[in-house]
Formats: sequence, structure tokens, C-alpha cells
Amino acid sequence: MHLVAIGGSDAGISAALRARELDRGADVTVVVADAYPNFSICGIPYYVSGEVGHWSNLAHRTHADLEATGMTLRLDTLATAIDVAGHRLHLRAADGAETVLPYDKLVVGTGALPAVPPIEGLADPGDPLAAGTRDGLGPADGVHLLHSMGDTFAVMDTLTRHSPASAVVVGAGYIGLEMAEGLTTRGIKVTQIEMADEVLPTVDSELGALVAAELAAHGVEVLTRTTVQGIERAEPGAAGRLRVHAATTAPDGTTTTLSQLADLVLVVTGVRPDSRLAAAAGATLGPRGAIAVNQRMETGLPDVYAAGDCVITHHRLLGTTWLPLGTTAHKQGRVAGENALGGNRTFAGSLGTQVVKIFDAVAARTGLREHEALAAGFTPATSQANPDDHKAYYPGAHPIAIRVTGDTSSGRLLGAQLIGRRGSEVAKRVDTYATAIFHSMTVDGLAELDLSYTPPLGSPWDAVQIAAQTWTRDHQLPAQRHALETARG
Amino acid sequence: MHLVAIGGSDAGISAALRARELDRGADVTVVVADAYPNFSICGIPYYVSGEVGHWSNLAHRTHADLEATGMTLRLDTLATAIDVAGHRLHLRAADGAETVLPYDKLVVGTGALPAVPPIEGLADPGDPLAAGTRDGLGPADGVHLLHSMGDTFAVMDTLTRHSPASAVVVGAGYIGLEMAEGLTTRGIKVTQIEMADEVLPTVDSELGALVAAELAAHGVEVLTRTTVQGIERAEPGAAGRLRVHAATTAPDGTTTTLSQLADLVLVVTGVRPDSRLAAAAGATLGPRGAIAVNQRMETGLPDVYAAGDCVITHHRLLGTTWLPLGTTAHKQGRVAGENALGGNRTFAGSLGTQVVKIFDAVAARTGLREHEALAAGFTPATSQANPDDHKAYYPGAHPIAIRVTGDTSSGRLLGAQLIGRRGSEVAKRVDTYATAIFHSMTVDGLAELDLSYTPPLGSPWDAVQIAAQTWTRDHQLPAQRHALETARG
Repeated sequence: MHLVAIGGSDAGISAALRARELDRGADVTVVVADAYPNFSICGIPYYVSGEVGHWSNLAHRTHADLEATGMTLRLDTLATAIDVAGHRLHLRAADGAETVLPYDKLVVGTGALPAVPPIEGLADPGDPLAAGTRDGLGPADGVHLLHSMGDTFAVMDTLTRHSPASAVVVGAGYIGLEMAEGLTTRGIKVTQIEMADEVLPTVDSELGALVAAELAAHGVEVLTRTTVQGIERAEPGAAGRLRVHAATTAPDGTTTTLSQLADLVLVVTGVRPDSRLAAAAGATLGPRGAIAVNQRMETGLPDVYAAGDCVITHHRLLGTTWLPLGTTAHKQGRVAGENALGGNRTFAGSLGTQVVKIFDAVAARTGLREHEALAAGFTPATSQANPDDHKAYYPGAHPIAIRVTGDTSSGRLLGAQLIGRRGSEVAKRVDTYATAIFHSMTVDGLAELDLSYTPPLGSPWDAVQIAAQTWTRDHQLPAQRHALETARG
Repeated sequence: MHLVAIGGSDAGISAALRARELDRGADVTVVVADAYPNFSICGIPYYVSGEVGHWSNLAHRTHADLEATGMTLRLDTLATAIDVAGHRLHLRAADGAETVLPYDKLVVGTGALPAVPPIEGLADPGDPLAAGTRDGLGPADGVHLLHSMGDTFAVMDTLTRHSPASAVVVGAGYIGLEMAEGLTTRGIKVTQIEMADEVLPTVDSELGALVAAELAAHGVEVLTRTTVQGIERAEPGAAGRLRVHAATTAPDGTTTTLSQLADLVLVVTGVRPDSRLAAAAGATLGPRGAIAVNQRMETGLPDVYAAGDCVITHHRLLGTTWLPLGTTAHKQGRVAGENALGGNRTFAGSLGTQVVKIFDAVAARTGLREHEALAAGFTPATSQANPDDHKAYYPGAHPIAIRVTGDTSSGRLLGAQLIGRRGSEVAKRVDTYATAIFHSMTVDGLAELDLSYTPPLGSPWDAVQIAAQTWTRDHQLPAQRHALETARG
């Protein structure tokens, strides 16, 4: 039995690890497009910031550790085609040499590619299997995308060679925010540009505004409702400073244009699934062009599984969507690896649980926001509470802003968003909500959970429960009062 | 409708708050034995340490806040007898005046009294309804129990008037450990004496040893396997220094005696339910002499509910036991208050979730330990893992020692114990286990939870899941391998 995994990131490696764990005799090969298997791409901002001393520390496991599990790694090797009928994978080595690798079972974990927004003057490197690139300013000019270790080395090269004093970060999602912090940590003056009304548009703007305040407090200039339209050299023909042209649309619809000088431009506006290899082999695609899979991570092509950022995401509240996250890729890869060996696991589904640290603030979410829940057919309502992280009498208490979304028809908990200080256990408080949603709890039911309490770290009703009780009071107390009156006759 | 709650601590106040929330016309009286309604007795160590500036800050809500909810407080009033047939409560004011208070529904929340161990020379203050006190050394001599605000003021009086340089803390449970820290913070040299093999005997000794190391690192002398036998004045007849006599039993059974001089002795060896009032009225008692109640918090006496430390505890894994915790008292009081008004709530049951901070360490547990699970009829096994709290490449990572107990027959998660550094989100990581046990998850099933991840705060598989996977590998991987082989034929 020869299991081949394509992709050296979370999904492919997780599949290979699980296969080797379950069957110590399994022949497992992982085909890795670059030289960096099992790297934590989530850690890139902390290498750029200087907090991680050497890039090799970003590996979840070293090459040697991986090989010690008994898997074979083929590095710097691009999978160019899947011969489904022949159970063979076509490979191209860095030197251009073409080879064919037979397999019994295949796990496709080709991941994602950085989105390249339509910014005039921005080069599009295309994807590894396509010729369609677009010329323009790129890494050599100090204009960077950031997704792979290769991108990372290019950014570090710009930082080292040109010591930029200023940077524009295009995009204020997770990576954009972390990079704004990382570059600020390096002493670079950062301007962060975001199209949406508020930074961190994956949470409600009431909470995004708190993140914006944290950025401003650390010297980051934040421009929201602003779309970058073009990037050019500040002095035509000469390498060096860059000029970023953008347009800001005010709430009343009026638009003003601006131009911002910078020594470095980082474009981090999201990713798209890298599903071309599987699609060319006949795999069905789903939302956002990601590879369609069932919860066993089967593609429908015989003996071909897929997992990670390249596949659609089974979501416990939404059905199928596309929601690429490293945590999900680990789980899906593990399921694919087990099933490829003849097991019978299903991926239980995502809730889109996420957390990000921005300077001294931590923002997290799980489940659905109100507009997402509405679109999914629920009758949602949202309440915000700002309970302290621990008893106010004990030094160092800070409020956590918590927005709970519940279904007013069923009372079911649908989602939660939190922002608080680092040290307020925000990241693991969102996990309680995630575990509650996993089990379809009602918002009211959260009061029944036996959560821990000591004055320096919590409250007798934890902040998680106080926020839930606020929602219940706002949306269910009248009905509870009425029911009680009725019961009493 | 006149609802009367006896007890101004968590259970009584929670019942009164819930009743007033549900029925704005309800007539609600809370009878409080002292002048300190709704005080956080869990906060006492932080007042003694000096971290809480004024004792009044220990109130969850002020007297005025409570009255603003529309409840009536009768302070310094002892409930002396319940006339169940007459629906009347007999009261005694501080000046000795006796009155009778009619009620329609009664919630008994008389709480707990400090345990008084059989130490020669230690005074037993008895309980408020009993004459049976025992003479001996007490607060005036610098020998203290610690449960009420009155006890707290007595300790503070000793600290202020005598500025003790040394203290013996008898007992190394939650309060004992917090008081050892609090007195150390005040600059007092503390000797902590514990009967059990290790401090914090509510967790496995492997983890208790880590707490002992934390105490030692902060200058606390720890004596385990040591029983205090007597306390006397160091100079007979003269107030001042105290001499504590104790005996240590080595693992081989040999006993050595010791005597320790101290300026202050604190005896904090646990509590016992204060169920005398309800018992005298005919209530049935259960484990440890606590008032028997059903999950609606009904005592069986007509229109008499009870909640908090004075009642038995419905435990989701153990059935009925006695496990007094403030978090539980809040929940039970809320259920009692709602049902007293005609509602239909049930207390969902405790898991004994607890957390304690000891200097820079945080220890937590939920559910059952192995010997508890064994006694409850499970076939448990326990594994320990020591995963980092976040990715090791990001600065400041620390391991969390996590012991997971599962049922080898069903695979069900039964309990978890954790010790880590303050800042490692230990308190809220135990909550994920608690929520998982609440929903009867298997240990293996924890891998399906969508928990949050960012490198500064977690891992793609959270520490909670890494520890669960360690258990699964230790206890289920051979069976998983066998099942896979069988499936493949």
C-alpha cells in the first residue's frame, strides 16, 4: 500500500502522520513543492518581526523528525498531473526532470495561493501550474505578497537590504494585522489600508473598532473604506520609494483619493484555493472553486482524497462553504490519512473558530455572526456584554467585549465574538463557546456549564456565561416571565 | 407571594436575584446572619494579602445594588427555626429580639461552617445554633479559623496588632494555599502543614508536587504527611508566640514528631455543611450530613427549597455527593429562586470544576480522578502530557502538565487535571474539558472540536487536544490499529 500525499503543509503532513501512526508498515510519500515541509505559515509574521530568531524554528517538525516517523519526503517537487485511471502522479523536479510516481491512495493537499487584487502596477506571479502571470512591481521592487516561505525570504531580503522606514500593508485581516504589528515591532512606520468599514472585517465593526484603536495606540495609521488602486515607483524608472494610490469612500458615498509614499508594500488580502491539479484530473469543484469532498474527505475520483485549504469546508452551521484554516487542515488531513488506509472517519465540521493577537489585544470568534446566520436561514439576534475577565477587586481586571449571537426561534447559540487584553484568556474562552456550539447548546443552557472560578482568573458566572445571560435577558426574559405567569395561572 | 431566602451568600442572593428578575412584583426577603450580604468569601485571601485595599470591595454587589433590585435584606439576623406547617420563620436579631417572618416559599442557603480538626488546644467556636463549643486557643491568641467576614476581621486584627513574623497554615487545600501565598506576600514566613502525601490533595500527587515546588520557590516551608496534634502557647500563660506540635509519617510508616514556633496559626482544613436549621425542621440529610434535595432544589418539606454549600450535590458522573463550590451555589440558588416562583428548572449537575492560583502557577481540575472514577464503577486510565501553551517558536511558551482520565471501556472522557504558569490560559482550558464532559464526549472525540489557534496563544491542535490524543494513543491506538487491519481484511 503506497499512500502519496501532495503538499508539505498541514493537510498533507497530517495525513501522512496519521497513516504512519495507524499502520507502521504503510509506505507513505509526501510530495513537497518547496524545501519547507511542515512549516507553520501562521508563524511567518513573528519571524518577520524578529521575535522568531531563525526561520527554521517555524517548522512544526524538522525534516529529520518527519523522516523518523517512517514517511518519505520528496522536496522541491511539483505535482503536475494526476493520472487517476493509472494511479500515477506526474512530478517535475526543480531541475525540470519529469518523473512518474505510482500510488494506491492519493491525498491532495495543495493548499491555497495568495489572492492578487486588481491593483494597477502589481505583478501577479500566477500559480505554479499556469503560465498566466502579470508583469508589474514585485519583490525586487519592495512590493510583496506573503503566503509561502519563499515569499517570506523575499520580504526579509527587502527588510535587510533596504531597511525600509515606512510600509503600506494592504488588507487588515489576520495576516495583515499581524504584519502591521510585526513591521511596527521592527521600527517601521506602518499605514494599514482596508477596503471594509473597519479593520478585522471578520468580526462585527463594534469589535473591529477596538482593534483599530489598539493599532492607533501603537502608531499604526489605519485607513478603512479605502481601496488601493495602483502602485508605482515614486521616481519613475528608479528603484526605491513607492507611491500607493488609493480611494476612500465616506459613509455618505463621497470618494476622496490619496497617495501614500512607502519603502515597502505588502499585499495581504486573502487566499484562494489551489485546486487546479485536482480539477485537471476531473475533480468536482465547489464553493469558491475549492475541491468538492465529502466528510470522509473523498473527492469522488477513485482513491483520491483531498484536505486542507484546497477543499470545500463542511461547516456545522452552514453546510458547505470555503473557510481555510490551519486547524481545519490538520483535522481533515488526519481523517483523509486514516480513510486512505481503509478507516472510517468523518470530518466533524468546522465552526470557523479563529483568534488573533494584535499588540496587547486578542480578538476571537466562533460560529456565525448575525448576517451570516440570517443568510443561513436562522432568525438571529446579537447582544454585547463587557464583563471583566476576573473579579474587579483583584488587581489587573480588564473587560472583555463579547458579542453573542443566538437564534431567537430555537434559543440555540450560533456564534460568539470576543475582544480583550492579552492575559484575559480570550483565546480559550472562545473555545468554550465553540464546544457549546459543537453540541448545539442553547444560549440559556450555557448557564448550566460548570466552568472554573478563582477571583484572579474568573467570576462565579464566567464572562462566557455573563455574556450569554445578557443575550437571554435581552431576547428571552419577556417570554420566560410570560411562561412563569402562565404556569402560575 | 413572599419568598424568603435564608443566607446572604451565593445561594440565597442568587435565588433572590432570579426571583426578582422573573417577577418584578415578587416580595423577596433575604435573611442574613451577619452584616455582609453577597460577599465573595473566595476573595478573602486577597484582602488578607493586601491586594484588595478595602474589605468592602469583596462584595459582589453593594447593599444598595441589592436593594435596587427590589429585594429586602434583614442583616444581623439569625434564622433559628422553620415552622414548616405554619409557613413561618423564627428569627433572632443581634440584640436578642425574637420575631417571626411568614413566608410562602423558603430557600435555605445556610452554607457551610469551617471544619474544626481534633487538635489539642484549638478552640471550637461551634455553630450558631448549638451550645457545644470547645474552649482553647482562638483569635485572641492568634489562632484562627477562616470562613466568614468575621473570621477575616479577626485575622486582620492579629496581623495589624501583632505584625506576626511567622505563621503556620494548617491545611494545603485551595484556601490554605491561597493563604500561604497571601501571608508570604505580606512578608510573613509561612510553614504549610498538610496531612496528605502532597499539597493540593484534590489533584494527583504528580501535579501536587509541582505546586509544592512553586511554594518552595517562594519561600514557603512545606510539610506533607504531617498531622498537627496540638497548639499551645510557647510560654505557658503568656500571650504571644505559639508552639505547634505535629507528627510526620514517612512512606515507610515511621513517625517523627516536630514542634514549630509561630506568631500566627491558621487552621483551614475544609468545611462542613450547615444543615442544622433544615434538619431540625425535618429535612432529610444526605452525604456528609448535607440537606437532601432533588435537582429542582426541593427539600421534600412543603415549599422549602435549599441550595448551596448546605445541600448535597448532584454530580454528572457521580450521582449525589457533597462538593461545595461557589459556582455551584450560584447555579443552585438561581434554580431554587425560579422554581420557588413556580418555574420548572433543574440543576444540571456539577463536575467539580475548580481552579486555584498559587503564586505564578495555576492548577485546575474537572470531572473525576482515576480513583474516584474507579469507585464510581468506571474502568479508568490516566495519561499525562506536557504540551506547550503556545507554539514554542513564539517567545514565552511554557508547558502545561495535563492529566486526562478516560474510561477504557467506553472511551468516555471522565476528567482532566492541569497545572501551568499564570498566563497560560489554564483556567479556561479546563473549561473546554468541563464542557466536553458535560456533553459526554469521548477522549478521542476531543480531536473534533474546533478550538482557536494563533502561534502566540495556542497550537493547531490545542494543548487540550494534544493531552487527549496522548491518552488515546496510550489506551486506544492498539485497538484502532487492529480495527483497521480487520477492516482491510
